[in-house]
Amino acid sequence: MKNVMQRLRAIRVVLVEPSHPGNVGAAARAMKTMGLGELALVAPQRFPHAEATALASGAADILQDAAVYETLEAAVADCTLVVGSSARARRLAVPPHDARTAALRVAGLAPQERPAIVFGRERTGLTNAELDRCHWLMQIPANPAYSSLNLAAAVQVVCYELRMAMSADGATASGEAPAPAGDMERFYEHLERVLVATGFLDPQAPKLLMRRLRRLFQRARPDRNEVNILRGILTSVERLRQR
Amino acid sequence: MKNVMQRLRAIRVVLVEPSHPGNVGAAARAMKTMGLGELALVAPQRFPHAEATALASGAADILQDAAVYETLEAAVADCTLVVGSSARARRLAVPPHDARTAALRVAGLAPQERPAIVFGRERTGLTNAELDRCHWLMQIPANPAYSSLNLAAAVQVVCYELRMAMSADGATASGEAPAPAGDMERFYEHLERVLVATGFLDPQAPKLLMRRLRRLFQRARPDRNEVNILRGILTSVERLRQR
Repeated sequence: MKNVMQRLRAIRVVLVEPSHPGNVGAAARAMKTMGLGELALVAPQRFPHAEATALASGAADILQDAAVYETLEAAVADCTLVVGSSARARRLAVPPHDARTAALRVAGLAPQERPAIVFGRERTGLTNAELDRCHWLMQIPANPAYSSLNLAAAVQVVCYELRMAMSADGATASGEAPAPAGDMERFYEHLERVLVATGFLDPQAPKLLMRRLRRLFQRARPDRNEVNILRGILTSVERLRQR
Repeated sequence: MKNVMQRLRAIRVVLVEPSHPGNVGAAARAMKTMGLGELALVAPQRFPHAEATALASGAADILQDAAVYETLEAAVADCTLVVGSSARARRLAVPPHDARTAALRVAGLAPQERPAIVFGRERTGLTNAELDRCHWLMQIPANPAYSSLNLAAAVQVVCYELRMAMSADGATASGEAPAPAGDMERFYEHLERVLVATGFLDPQAPKLLMRRLRRLFQRARPDRNEVNILRGILTSVERLRQR
């Protein structure tokens, strides 16, 4: 658990040119409820501000420690991975991850990485030049007819997904980094061979069932150790056959 | 997708005695961004109110259509399932689900069900008598050192989880309702029998590995169909042994 706390606290939340002080305070509160703590502000219109402090509620410490920068470049200068959140569906050079996938990928980073999650202006989001500075883009799945989350609400959802992805609360992750894609491919090949051998899969048409099984195991996101257990099971079935 | 839209719109969000009009407006906006639409207010301190309308932004229609009741009982009179959200860890008669599990369970309800999600007062939450009216309780996993989400932020997270659970966006669910716990228990018993038979599990000490396997499959939340596929695989292994 301590590790989870440290990793959440190592994630920087960057707000670019927030115009409403209330949103800055509410974003700080959202961060603290999920265990994040490092807030960076790029050219905030008004900061510090009484309304920010009021809406931060019990997260006044995060506001107090917030660093203010003139540019996004400066705010993420020491970060090794920059994730930009994009509110609107627009022509993006890189296709965005949904927030859950992005959070799981951040959770899977090596501990020495320094990730930043960047949120744009309330009305206009991030500029194209700012988006170009981001390694990944992220989008919160929303109602296509009205997808405009309040800035602090977006910070809340993303910080919640980061906590879920990193902690034992996360029903989607074991807490360990998910096994690399290559390990998963070798597991699926092994599974297919064994299921053909047991007669469960028709060797002429294994595709549909394998696709369903892939979907099932991909949702669980096994870690390396778990993939080893699953492959051990497959090997024990193969031995049974050879007896 | 139409089905998802209808099912999200059939979920009633109930706010009990909200004291800040801004929170009511922000909650309406949070609902609309996730495709929910039915808001019920129990004895709001001030409603309608200019601040609610301002913070609702593009969700003024939800505020306009919001129904006002004197009691929680009246607000959920026609609902078949009432889920109460509990902010604080306190002595609860029923253990709360986390928000993701609760959302997946709501998504798994029959289409004729009428669910309500109930949020309590900003400072004090729901009373014990109100919690007793709820069929399930729900909690948003949060920082134990500061777990106080703003009311509208909590509504945002829960509505987001409902949308994720109900739509194809949900990377954690197959889209079908998760298999009932009894089916999962029969699957685990079957799995244990087969793994003892293949020699993978030591019949004297099967516990630790079975616990790891349970954790893995619980994360995937197989639906009924997937559990049937997994049990079919186990049966095919048993037949191999009998050859």
